[in-house]
Amino acid sequence: MEKKQVKVGLMGLGTVGTGVLRILEGHQSDLFKQTGLEIVVEKILVQDTSKERNIRINPEWLTTDPYAVLRNPNIDIIIEVMGRTHPTKEYILEALENGKHVVTANKDLVAMHGAEILSKAEEKGCDVFYEASVGGGIPILRALVEGLSSDRIHKMMGIVNGTTNYILTKMSKEGAPYEKVLKEAQELGYAEADPTSDVEGLDAARKMAILSTLGFHVNYHLADVQVRGISKVTAEDIHYGKKLGYEIKLLGIAQNDDGCIEVSVQPTMIHHTHPLASVNGVFNAVYVYGEAVGETMFYGPGAGELPTATAITSDLVTVVKNMKLGVNGRGMVAPYRETILKTSEQIESKFFLRLIVSDQRGVLAEITSLLANSDISIEQIMQQPCGDATKQAEIIIITHMATKANMEKLLRDFSHLKSINEVKSLYRVEGGEEK
Amino acid sequence: MEKKQVKVGLMGLGTVGTGVLRILEGHQSDLFKQTGLEIVVEKILVQDTSKERNIRINPEWLTTDPYAVLRNPNIDIIIEVMGRTHPTKEYILEALENGKHVVTANKDLVAMHGAEILSKAEEKGCDVFYEASVGGGIPILRALVEGLSSDRIHKMMGIVNGTTNYILTKMSKEGAPYEKVLKEAQELGYAEADPTSDVEGLDAARKMAILSTLGFHVNYHLADVQVRGISKVTAEDIHYGKKLGYEIKLLGIAQNDDGCIEVSVQPTMIHHTHPLASVNGVFNAVYVYGEAVGETMFYGPGAGELPTATAITSDLVTVVKNMKLGVNGRGMVAPYRETILKTSEQIESKFFLRLIVSDQRGVLAEITSLLANSDISIEQIMQQPCGDATKQAEIIIITHMATKANMEKLLRDFSHLKSINEVKSLYRVEGGEEK
Repeated sequence: MEKKQVKVGLMGLGTVGTGVLRILEGHQSDLFKQTGLEIVVEKILVQDTSKERNIRINPEWLTTDPYAVLRNPNIDIIIEVMGRTHPTKEYILEALENGKHVVTANKDLVAMHGAEILSKAEEKGCDVFYEASVGGGIPILRALVEGLSSDRIHKMMGIVNGTTNYILTKMSKEGAPYEKVLKEAQELGYAEADPTSDVEGLDAARKMAILSTLGFHVNYHLADVQVRGISKVTAEDIHYGKKLGYEIKLLGIAQNDDGCIEVSVQPTMIHHTHPLASVNGVFNAVYVYGEAVGETMFYGPGAGELPTATAITSDLVTVVKNMKLGVNGRGMVAPYRETILKTSEQIESKFFLRLIVSDQRGVLAEITSLLANSDISIEQIMQQPCGDATKQAEIIIITHMATKANMEKLLRDFSHLKSINEVKSLYRVEGGEEK
Repeated sequence: MEKKQVKVGLMGLGTVGTGVLRILEGHQSDLFKQTGLEIVVEKILVQDTSKERNIRINPEWLTTDPYAVLRNPNIDIIIEVMGRTHPTKEYILEALENGKHVVTANKDLVAMHGAEILSKAEEKGCDVFYEASVGGGIPILRALVEGLSSDRIHKMMGIVNGTTNYILTKMSKEGAPYEKVLKEAQELGYAEADPTSDVEGLDAARKMAILSTLGFHVNYHLADVQVRGISKVTAEDIHYGKKLGYEIKLLGIAQNDDGCIEVSVQPTMIHHTHPLASVNGVFNAVYVYGEAVGETMFYGPGAGELPTATAITSDLVTVVKNMKLGVNGRGMVAPYRETILKTSEQIESKFFLRLIVSDQRGVLAEITSLLANSDISIEQIMQQPCGDATKQAEIIIITHMATKANMEKLLRDFSHLKSINEVKSLYRVEGGEEK
């Protein structure tokens, strides 16, 4: 007799878990029409079964015992929205061991233990999908795995953290300082009480590791993502950037040149004509450069109860369709390339430099000759007095393409130059004429 | 013995067909790693086998006989890039009858005969995919069918024709008149010698019919798309639009309110803060409003040899994977809703109106009282003398949300009013405060 129902175990019932329940209930008949099967909840793992919740729930679903879900013979699919990597990883591995398919929104888990989990899934013939782990409601992972499958992707640039994009957008629009905007964001619930993971770029780094693994067909390690957060970005930097035609965004940049890969997360000056420069507020976007397709962008809400739940439910629909077709565990493409990291000599970009110098004759000549010594040429330069009583001036430079190694050499040379009082800021630059 | 090769028949060898060959050759080893099968060309249908081509081709592949492809027992998959609907439709039906899977880029064919073709495919257990028919390299159909499958889409707005977007972008940036920009576009090859299909919105209408069918799960007929092209858009309209904060774009708009559907293609004033307002040149984008996911946008090249070929090859990869899994012909979701068209009383939007009136006392009072009579309220209004010797003035109005029926009534009332010399332009308005 053919199966009529698919039974789901939900691990975690926070915002996203609640959203999943809402969609499963609200869209029941649509989901049935699409899959031919009824998707029903069997068990929900929670910390406290007596807690008041703003959604109607059958009390029999709730349990505080993970094994009532993981070892429940009725359950076909686990939806993991409990977060953290421990004991979550162990739970997921046990679920797979028990032949259950897994849908997860857990970027930490996928970024850190994805390879191990996927290999267990393959062994057991189970599906593991994690669309919601990157870009919330944006179906970017599907686009990479399927839509652009025949192309060779050589670069991805992403605004993949809503909190930092909200902060930078607000700083840019209001000229307000970082600390003030962060505080407001915390009051509005857009930033957490401990904002480190967001503002220092760690959250974005995890997402970039996931994107790089899928887009470049490698097993990219989180530890190899170069990370710099936004906590040092100043209103002045944003002001000067704008003057030269740039916005500052926290960009994840993953680049593959002839098999050599660099992945970084850093506040970046992006030219105002680039579509990523207009991605504002809590929205996310991933800009993909494919050898054949050229440039495509995927834009949408990066977080939120229902967007994230939509991504999870779409994964769930895929698992159910695969179950019906009997093809689970075969949809994933295992990384088939070796990861070769770029050296500093191979990483190239334009740079934005802001220097505080003594306002005296010959300074500009000294600086420009140091740039020439490091093989760095200048695209734009601007000098102006600091406007205080210190007889200092500010010099703003946007370079042409230069290697990271040459820029590091330049910074060492600068540190020996007495007339330079401070290297106030240094940013990578993207967009504009050179790409 | 398991199959080692998949054999492809290519029908048509224009720009896109050549692009497909380039990708199949250039990405051979990647495609093998993804599918585990070698994808090889068996036959190519051309009009002239002796024609010089800028790609290396085995002369044995070429044939002028369609049945050498359609009835070739070695061929598993047909890639149709010959265009037109006749005899292409008959060819495709015969290919399916012979058990061959089909990948096509032919929007006319899909928009006009999609239902018949898909039903034959289902009967024969064959795949038919057509990602390249909408938005060139943008994987938008996959996003609708899979990524947003669990959501309920209530609106899609698309810039789905590159030629018209190029013309409108150029008119907006240079203040140049339509005829001049069209001529330049023709010289550059961005517009065809007979540009009717593009500039009158017919091409966009076909794409919107395809998007509506997939997004709303209905069988939306091309004839039910309301179409208006850009040939009457003037530099003045663009100028006044900008003054009020809007850009003019040829937008396909598909809207589903409680199961009642409207689909149109028309030059539309879109607020400059909306992401679609910054989609410039030949780029395409589709903005999707989902009940749960909120707002997402898919942006990329709408045409071109390699982008379109990428979409085709990605479809090809899907077919090959399905062959390996033995699940062809089951990936499509048949429309399961009835199409109920909105009436003029149900279609609502903001409007932009530009009137030429006699510059005499009381005109504005007459006009505003007619608006009130039609239950249309005003968001912005602007009056200024025409600046010629005719004693005329221009009145520009942006309304609040109003029904199409009420706007039609207003236009009838205007035609009886002596002080209105001409209704110079009328546009739908999107974005801004009200949505």
